[in-house]
Amino acid sequence: MTAFISLTTDFGTSDFGVGEMLGVIYTIAGEEIRVADLTHDVPPQNVLDAAVILGRHTPYFPEGSIHIVVVDPGVGTTRRPIAARLGRQFFVGPDNGVCTLMLRNAQREGEPIQVVHTNRPRCWLENVSTIFHGRDIFAAVGAHLAAGVPLEELGDVIDDPVLLDLAEPRPIEGGWEGIVTRVDHFGNLESNIDASLIEGLGPVEVIVGGAAIHGLVETFGAARAGDLVAMIDSAGVIGVSAVNGSAAARLNAAQGTPFKVLKACA
Amino acid sequence: MTAFISLTTDFGTSDFGVGEMLGVIYTIAGEEIRVADLTHDVPPQNVLDAAVILGRHTPYFPEGSIHIVVVDPGVGTTRRPIAARLGRQFFVGPDNGVCTLMLRNAQREGEPIQVVHTNRPRCWLENVSTIFHGRDIFAAVGAHLAAGVPLEELGDVIDDPVLLDLAEPRPIEGGWEGIVTRVDHFGNLESNIDASLIEGLGPVEVIVGGAAIHGLVETFGAARAGDLVAMIDSAGVIGVSAVNGSAAARLNAAQGTPFKVLKACA
Amino acid sequence: MTAFISLTTDFGTSDFGVGEMLGVIYTIAGEEIRVADLTHDVPPQNVLDAAVILGRHTPYFPEGSIHIVVVDPGVGTTRRPIAARLGRQFFVGPDNGVCTLMLRNAQREGEPIQVVHTNRPRCWLENVSTIFHGRDIFAAVGAHLAAGVPLEELGDVIDDPVLLDLAEPRPIEGGWEGIVTRVDHFGNLESNIDASLIEGLGPVEVIVGGAAIHGLVETFGAARAGDLVAMIDSAGVIGVSAVNGSAAARLNAAQGTPFKVLKACA
Repeated sequence: MTAFISLTTDFGTSDFGVGEMLGVIYTIAGEEIRVADLTHDVPPQNVLDAAVILGRHTPYFPEGSIHIVVVDPGVGTTRRPIAARLGRQFFVGPDNGVCTLMLRNAQREGEPIQVVHTNRPRCWLENVSTIFHGRDIFAAVGAHLAAGVPLEELGDVIDDPVLLDLAEPRPIEGGWEGIVTRVDHFGNLESNIDASLIEGLGPVEVIVGGAAIHGLVETFGAARAGDLVAMIDSAGVIGVSAVNGSAAARLNAAQGTPFKVLKACA
Repeated sequence: MTAFISLTTDFGTSDFGVGEMLGVIYTIAGEEIRVADLTHDVPPQNVLDAAVILGRHTPYFPEGSIHIVVVDPGVGTTRRPIAARLGRQFFVGPDNGVCTLMLRNAQREGEPIQVVHTNRPRCWLENVSTIFHGRDIFAAVGAHLAAGVPLEELGDVIDDPVLLDLAEPRPIEGGWEGIVTRVDHFGNLESNIDASLIEGLGPVEVIVGGAAIHGLVETFGAARAGDLVAMIDSAGVIGVSAVNGSAAARLNAAQGTPFKVLKACA
Repeated sequence: MTAFISLTTDFGTSDFGVGEMLGVIYTIAGEEIRVADLTHDVPPQNVLDAAVILGRHTPYFPEGSIHIVVVDPGVGTTRRPIAARLGRQFFVGPDNGVCTLMLRNAQREGEPIQVVHTNRPRCWLENVSTIFHGRDIFAAVGAHLAAGVPLEELGDVIDDPVLLDLAEPRPIEGGWEGIVTRVDHFGNLESNIDASLIEGLGPVEVIVGGAAIHGLVETFGAARAGDLVAMIDSAGVIGVSAVNGSAAARLNAAQGTPFKVLKACA
């Protein structure tokens, strides 16, 4: 059996974590596994950021893919390690809400969801440290799953996984109010306002960080360096960019900053 | 069928781009594919830099390898997406000249060259965003190629791909004048003056950024920390380094800075 | 035959080195190989750091894995290129001591050790540059090994590989004195004092960089942001961290800084 495993962590790439997890995965799952690094540069302990990343990537992956996420500020405390079937793919990681968007995607599609508390030490490494469950539990559990161990043999089924309380955009007079959900490494802002919400509005303006940006552009090519532009980004939501610059810095905006899309004044 | 795909982008590794492309590639091309990250740290929108990197790497890859490059400042404008057989390997990316050095390598070897405008939407993802053709077109097209779709089924053959106007070194009195083609992350300077050009000159001096460097060293071991040294670098061209430092910073040199190699005075 | 190859270098990920090595490996070893990037962010020319990383990762990798390390300040000088069976796995890299901890692990387990000077040009690339043996010798030799060439055909057996003179912790009154062996990218300090050494001591205090840290915590969850804490880290040695900060910066500590663990005063 061949399977794909993806890794998303906040380890950076200059230390031990990634390589040790790869070693564990290859040792348990063998030569047929494919491992893809999504990113190891999640801002340290930023569970929301990792949740957004996971929710964005997973729709593009093949059926049966196993996504291991290690952004785990609660390691060694009572937070549970979990594994889950979320639609046609699998999640392995801490029970801290990092699977929220991936789970919501499966719910929206009406796909099966099953979560287990991975509490069977025979599926872990023999020695489990208190501070690196990424290697000692999550890599091992993900590799057993890839090797064909059924989900329900990895632990007891639970029905109360921790989920993040994600702000949903709400309708306001003339449009929608949401938030900045993520700032990318160029300083582009991504909101939680889906393009479908504003389809009937006609011309719009975007209000964020004290600025009002008129209209949506189709491409960066349409603007000059330094311009603030709003557009439907590659995730299908409304985003704001500073051409060849950082919109986050220009607007002093960050994860959680209010973000409105309104029908433009005539 | 097994194939190798390489990825070269300016996305960095902290965002969505790389992972989404991997997902698309694995979904279309399946379990037999191997994906190699050449680099995701091309300076943003630096097409020349990516072209030099591609021209350097590809001679080391196996026959049939597919190189996807996404350094694409013109995404969403009228610039064409292309795919090409360039000698024994393939290129997929924007028609902005980023394939220039890989194409020149094939020309120099007298190998076959065929370029197509990848204008068949059935070879793209179903929904194509205006700002991320890396995922929606290039990853999909590269994966179809890897899965065995013939090049000519990906689009119409064209004979006018955009090529960069690369300065060639020119003979001057006593030697050759070229330019710095690339600065690496240590600040080493790489020129476009091939070692073969200066074979008959005898002892040389290198003139760059106002400094004159006498002679070529064989290794860094021959110099002291801080010394500026010239050598035949690992690409077979004349380069300049500051031992344990940055020659680019020392000499205020960058891509395009004039770079001369002259017969040394007696 | 399938084999795993890991890469550990100080190249960074924005230049040619990694991609060229991948091309060489895939060309020689073919489609069955799996390549894992351990890290390309070893501090430039820091042989000790790479040695520690290698010693940490390799116990987690499958039997037969081949670990190529290119942290090679002596490239082009008389330092030998070597390959070695070190227990159940293989090392390929410069003879500068970077294999020291991996070799010590094999010695400790009583496993076989065999080192060869890889002096057979037929196992290298055809053209060997003076400054990039990572591509021209180590990648080629590692790939031949992966493809099934026996170790002893890669060169002459030697019995005097260069080994680093690693400080061993020494017993002092009331406990042990060692050093900081590595600082990770969060600024956490790792020492060379194994947890097993202090098993009988009862409550301890850790002395490093002028600070005295009382007791070992089990997890970060037990401390407040800013606290200095000591713990048994994921390698099983005593480490020191500043919660949500850099212990190295706080304590002005670096590789080599003295690090003591003492029985706590009553």
